[in-house]
Parts: sequence; structure tokens; C-alpha cells
Amino acid sequence: MVSSSVSRRQFLHSMASTGALLTLSLTNLKAEQPPNILLIFCDDLGYGDLGTFGHPTIRTPILDRMAAEGQKWTNFYAADSVCTPSRAGLLTGRLPIRSGMCSDVRRVLFPDSAGGLPADEITIAEMLKTAGYRTACIGKWHLGHLPQYLPRQHGFDYYFGIPYSNDMDKVRNLSVDEQMEPEPAFYNVPLIRNEEIIERPTEQHTLTQRYTHEAVEFITENKAHPWFVYLAHTMVHIPLFASATFEGSSRAGRYGDVVEEIDSSIGILLRTLQEMQLMDNTCVIFTSDNGPWLQFKQHGGSAGLLREGKGTTWEGGMREPTIFYWPGKIKPAVISDIGSTLDLFVTIAALAGTELPQDRIMDSYDLSPTLLNQAPSPRREMFYYRGQQLYAIRRDAYKMHLITENEYKADNQRTIHQPPLLYNVDVDPGEHYDISSHHPEIIAELKTIVHEHTKSLIKGKDQLVKRITSP
Amino acid sequence: MVSSSVSRRQFLHSMASTGALLTLSLTNLKAEQPPNILLIFCDDLGYGDLGTFGHPTIRTPILDRMAAEGQKWTNFYAADSVCTPSRAGLLTGRLPIRSGMCSDVRRVLFPDSAGGLPADEITIAEMLKTAGYRTACIGKWHLGHLPQYLPRQHGFDYYFGIPYSNDMDKVRNLSVDEQMEPEPAFYNVPLIRNEEIIERPTEQHTLTQRYTHEAVEFITENKAHPWFVYLAHTMVHIPLFASATFEGSSRAGRYGDVVEEIDSSIGILLRTLQEMQLMDNTCVIFTSDNGPWLQFKQHGGSAGLLREGKGTTWEGGMREPTIFYWPGKIKPAVISDIGSTLDLFVTIAALAGTELPQDRIMDSYDLSPTLLNQAPSPRREMFYYRGQQLYAIRRDAYKMHLITENEYKADNQRTIHQPPLLYNVDVDPGEHYDISSHHPEIIAELKTIVHEHTKSLIKGKDQLVKRITSP
Repeated sequence: MVSSSVSRRQFLHSMASTGALLTLSLTNLKAEQPPNILLIFCDDLGYGDLGTFGHPTIRTPILDRMAAEGQKWTNFYAADSVCTPSRAGLLTGRLPIRSGMCSDVRRVLFPDSAGGLPADEITIAEMLKTAGYRTACIGKWHLGHLPQYLPRQHGFDYYFGIPYSNDMDKVRNLSVDEQMEPEPAFYNVPLIRNEEIIERPTEQHTLTQRYTHEAVEFITENKAHPWFVYLAHTMVHIPLFASATFEGSSRAGRYGDVVEEIDSSIGILLRTLQEMQLMDNTCVIFTSDNGPWLQFKQHGGSAGLLREGKGTTWEGGMREPTIFYWPGKIKPAVISDIGSTLDLFVTIAALAGTELPQDRIMDSYDLSPTLLNQAPSPRREMFYYRGQQLYAIRRDAYKMHLITENEYKADNQRTIHQPPLLYNVDVDPGEHYDISSHHPEIIAELKTIVHEHTKSLIKGKDQLVKRITSP
Repeated sequence: MVSSSVSRRQFLHSMASTGALLTLSLTNLKAEQPPNILLIFCDDLGYGDLGTFGHPTIRTPILDRMAAEGQKWTNFYAADSVCTPSRAGLLTGRLPIRSGMCSDVRRVLFPDSAGGLPADEITIAEMLKTAGYRTACIGKWHLGHLPQYLPRQHGFDYYFGIPYSNDMDKVRNLSVDEQMEPEPAFYNVPLIRNEEIIERPTEQHTLTQRYTHEAVEFITENKAHPWFVYLAHTMVHIPLFASATFEGSSRAGRYGDVVEEIDSSIGILLRTLQEMQLMDNTCVIFTSDNGPWLQFKQHGGSAGLLREGKGTTWEGGMREPTIFYWPGKIKPAVISDIGSTLDLFVTIAALAGTELPQDRIMDSYDLSPTLLNQAPSPRREMFYYRGQQLYAIRRDAYKMHLITENEYKADNQRTIHQPPLLYNVDVDPGEHYDISSHHPEIIAELKTIVHEHTKSLIKGKDQLVKRITSP
């Protein structure tokens, strides 16, 4: 973590004039310009939903190959177990509780929400703008849909996508079963280009296809510059929609159709990069925002051997199938050290050769030595928040649960554990065997870390409780 | 399935004199001699226990590479959910109930057992002997330990290994916890070369290492001939032992140590094949006898996203991580069609160009068109027996449970389902969502298959009930 007193304004100003410094710091990357970053971010994809992560029937040949030829990270965590805080953590490199992007009242932003990512937060896009990057957000945003919160207010040159989840703005109450036989018209979700609504309701069948097309277009138009494309797929969040080519094509059912269309989309993007001869200067990152939404049964994914799914602080809620792919730069490896989407900010800054903001606490580690030289990951701990409450902490192999709760509905079994539960998640990734009674010394150590963390934490103003006042 | 009236004796006799025919049928394999077969068979390895099948911390780089460069089968079943019947099914290509190698009284053979694989059964080794193969069984046998049942009575030229499970012959009663801190002296298991006991109790720490060495020796000594090595590792059956090099080396604990030593062993074997220039004429097959033994907690493996483990007819009990590797002959693919260890008999016969026994029902399909040309698998169904009772059947994507039972102890929840449970195991491999009420027509179809199967089934005499009479 890095902290200091240079303000955001000073940071953005100083970085805008550091072209020389930038070139200097990039000599070790032996590239004429800093690398392009293609960050592919799924929604509600489970740890076990790719072939290379153990799914028997979902076919993901592109991602499997990327995992075999790149780095497959097997202990990589989303910043949170639900959408809005997870995305805030990814884009800012800070725990969502610092930006106020998590709440005990509402877990994500809804169409009637009045809050969003505060203007004084610095996103990866803003950071990269200081290094001359062209930046696009394509896909689901979910960090505030009022004009002042949209992507172009947060460092993105271009935006194409939906502002919140694809199951929101329901035209009426829908049961789980109805949402498993969905029609796009059930959801009055707008499709936005920059700040303009161009379609409503969004025709969701073609969304993956159109996002892919938009990404290809953006890359083509901006190939003379370094670029950052944040491709945040709407899928595989329910309601599940695939284009005609993929509908009914997967042995794994509709969920499989949708994952396989994303895999195919990545194939199109990689071919584009190859044809444009950009592959050797583009780092492709694949991960997801949180675990599978299990209450949607066959329309929710699988966390594989991990416990539970989306919304929980069990491993299935936050550990994600993650791949870094950059032929020639990243050598094939399986990395079982800890990493997080929180680390992408500082990691990408290191790859791009930009400086870091100095006026704030960052929760982001530089993974680039691991990516480029297989050095041990600098991240040794992970904090598992649910809303604004710290439910669990992991340090190295050991994970301590202070509180557990199975799903994120009101009627959950919320249990405060005294003493806490303790698992060795390297030996027991399924969190089956509590070993707290054998290791009081580890419990004590982890409690100290929790105490230090909590003591020094300054919470941001809760952005998720704010609602639009009725007229 | 193949049936006819040529007797075993006629078969073995006629095949012994068909050298010319053999050469003829091999021309399409474009090899000077039929391929060597290296069949690596683990014990109690779970579906989720390899990197390429989704384990986050067990490191299996050799098997991962074999899966990426060969065929990774994701719907491949052991013949049974426990050891003895599973091995009988593999070696004979027949459901163990036909040979009497499963029982409702005792699920496997024990040190006091008097039965074994009947002499009139034909094993893969016997079949390959007719084509001039040199054959070795290295590892755990568990098909009868009286002299008349040992491997050299069943077509193997050489045997080195233990005759039954490594947790048998206990010197006293041992708790689960004691078996998780085991000493070799707890188990008075003999180590046998051919028919001679050469060590007792077996020093289990070095067993994987010694098996590997024996396999290398056998291959080296027999390289002028086609050979079949059935390397049936004792591990990862509890008690878990690894050699000094591997003990404490895995991030996944002792279970990880043991799997990683097997992976390393396979690396040694592949290097041997390469150095001897045998790789392009050797088909390597990797699978296991049944799912993970979950009652041994961190010392049992993981079935990944599949339900339950060893001893049950849930998917976790019988579906196994399976790889076929044969550079130049088998092209990289993920096969999600159904296959079984039952199919290895006919598949290997096809690769070796031998004829099949014609006097008996075989439950074995020829997978070689799938291996060599990615044709659809001919296997469309799987029967799941527990002892001599048919608990479940799968046809294509649909699996019907007539009876379920969670583990194989006496106090299980055995439930007869009327109507049966129905799962689409392609869409729902974890068997979470019973769809029987939506598909009465599939239930009816599956019941017809069960009826036909049961009606025509001739059970072999139960070999597992027989005990050595006390003197």
C-alpha cells in the first residue's frame, strides 16, 4: 500500500507533463510505446466455469489456450462479492469501503440510486490518460448512472454499454423461473453511447456481439496510440442471452452458450490484435467481478471446488478464474500466489510506466514482477468485506472467518464466530475443515492484522444509500 | 457390446497364431509394430485433483501439458466407485457384475478374502499377449492375492507391487486421524515381485518412486517388442506417503505432495520414452479407479464441481480426470463425450490390431476413432452399480438415480427414489437440480434401458464373499 500527500489534481497535472520520464521508465519493456491493455471483465462468472478451471462441458478453447500459453492465476480475487463494490475496487485499486462504494443498506447501485463513484477517486483510465492512452469502457458500468458518474467523467474517452445490471429496471416482478426464460422486454435497461441512450430496452441477445464489435472498432481507430479497453461484459449475469449463432449450441445449456460466446469474442479480439500486429505490445487480462449467482440454478455458474458463490465471503464468492496473456512477455505459468483485481491499478501503472497517486491509501500491489519474471506475488493478504463489515481475512494460506452468511438475502444464516473459523485454503480450498482449534497462534496473528486494518481505516461516504428524490 | 460363441481357449489359441493378420490390420496405423500402451492408473484420485481439471494448488505441469497436447476427457468413468470392481472392469472390459467381482456383502477384496478374478476372464494383458506384447503389472493389483489370482495368472509377464490396498492388514484398529499421521509399520502390507514377497511391511514412502523405476526398467528391457505397462499406483489412496524429495513440498499439503510425485513420475516416464525414441509409438493413458475418499478430509482429494466421492454413484464417485496422450497420433482436443475404463479393452485391441473374444458379453466400446480422428464416442450410456445393485444409469446427457446413498458405511441414507431422480449432467454436472417432473418421457426411456439390461444380465458368481477358512 502506498500513501502520501500529493493531491489528485497535482497527480493528474504532473503526470500530464511527464512524457520524458515515461519513455525512460519503459526502456526495460523494450517497447516503442507503453503496452496496450485489454481488460476483459465478466459478470458473475464462477471459478469453475472455464475448461481450464475444470468445467466438463463448457467449451472455452480460446481461454484454455491463453491459460496454457500465459499465466493462469488460481488464487486471484475480485475486490468484493457483488458488482458495484467489485468494480469500484478494480478501477481505483482501493477497497470499496474507502470510496464509499459499498453499503450495509443496499449492496449495489439500483436504477433509483443517486450515488456513484466519487469524482475525487482516480481510475485506471484516468491514470493511463496521463500517459497518453486512449481509453474505452465497453459494457456494464454500474458505478453510477447519473450524468456526473458515467465513464467519461472517470477518464474514459468512449463509452458503450449499459449503466447497471441487465436484470434491473424490471417491467414487473419476475420470479426466478421467469428470469430463466427471459425476454429482453422484461428489462427496461438503456443502452448508452457516451452519454446518449441509443436503445431501450436493450436488445440483449446481441450484446456480447456488439460489445466485441465496439472493442474492435475502438482498437482499430486508436492503434497509433497506446490504448486501454475495459471490456466489461454484461454476461454471464442473468438474464442470459446469446446471439443466434450461439443459442442452443453448448452442451452445457444456455449458461454454456453465453460463456462460449464470450470465449469466441475473445478469439475475435485476439485475431484483431494479431492482424494489426499489436499482440506483442498488448497485455490481455481476463477475470470476473464475483462468483456465480447460485440461486439461478442452471443459469448460475459453478464455483468448481470452492464453497458458495456470489454475495458471500466464502471463496466461491470472490475467487475468480484469471488469466494474463501477453505472448513474448508473459511466459507460461500457473500462479497460485494471491492476487486481486485491486492490484490491476498499480500493476498496469507499472506496465505503462506512470506514477502513482500519492495522496491516498492504495490497496493495490504491483504484480508486474510476477507477470514478467515469475517473482513471488507481493500480495499476502485479502480482506473479505460484505457491505461495510469485514467478514473474513486471508493471510498466506490461512483464512479466518469472523462472520459467515450464505447468500445475500434478508433471511440468511448470519453467524458471528467466536472463536473465528480458520481454514488452510491452499490445502482445503473448499473450506470444509475448520482448523481453528489447532492454530490459536494464527488466529491471534490474523486478529492483529484485522485490528490494525480496522483501526486505520477511513470509510468513504456511503454512495449506495442515496436515492433519487421522487419529484 | 459384442457377443458370440468362440470360447476363451479358442480365442487365445487362434490369436497366438495370427501374426500375419495382425500385421495386415495394422497398416492403417503406419507403424512397424503395434503401439506400446502405458496405462497409468491412480487410486482414489478425484475429478478435481489436477491443475487442468481445476485444482488451484496441486501442481501437475506434466499432466496439464499432456491434457493440452493430447485428449482431455471430461466425461470419462471408472467401471465402479470402489477399487476391486473398478479394476476388474478395466482389465476385462466387462461390468464387474458379470465376473462376480462386486458384491453386496463386501465391496472389495480384503486380506482374508479367498476370491479373485476368475481364470476364465480375459484381461487386456492376455489379449495383448496374443499379439506378441510383453506385459507388466506394476503397482496395486487388488483382484485376488491367493497364488492363482496374481497378475502372472492373468496375462502379465511381470508383477511388482502390493496385492491389495495400502491401508489393509492394519496391525491394530486405527482412527481416521491416526491414518492421517500414518507410519508404514501400521500396515503389514506385503510387497511382491512376481509371486514372491520381497518386503513386509512395505516401505510406502518410496513406493511411487520404486514403481516408476520398475516401469522404466521394464520398458528398457522390452523395447524390442511391443509392450503393455499397467502402472497402477498405490497412491493417492490413504495412508498418504511421499518420498523425501516431495514430502512437504506441495502448497496443497500431503495430498498435494503425493499427487505431485505421481506427476513427476510421469515426467520421468515420458523422458524415458523420448530418449528411447518410443514416444511416437506409445499411447499413454491416465485415469483413476474411483473418486476421492472424502471421509479422510484433507487426505482425500476433491471431485471438483462434481457431487460426492468414492463409494457412491453420484458423479464424484466414478467420473475421473482422464487423458490420452500420443504425440503425432492423438491431436489436441477436449472430449466431453462419454467414455469409460470399460472401453480400454476394445480400444486397446483396436490399436494393437487384435481380435476380440467372441464367447462373452463385452461392455467395451472402441474409442480409437475418437482418439485418432475425433469421431463421436460410440458410448452413449453408463451403468452405475453399487455392489450388485444398479443405482443409476446415464444415457447421453441424462442421468437417472433409482437409488442414492451417500457413502459406503452401514449408516448411510439409502433412498429408493420413486419416481427416480433425473439430472442433465451436461448442463448440471454437480447434480443439484432434479428435473424428473419435467421429463417423464426421458424417465420412461431410461427405465426401458434398465429393464433390457437387467433382464439379459447374467451375474457371475460372487467372488468377494469368499473368505479364507481359518485353519
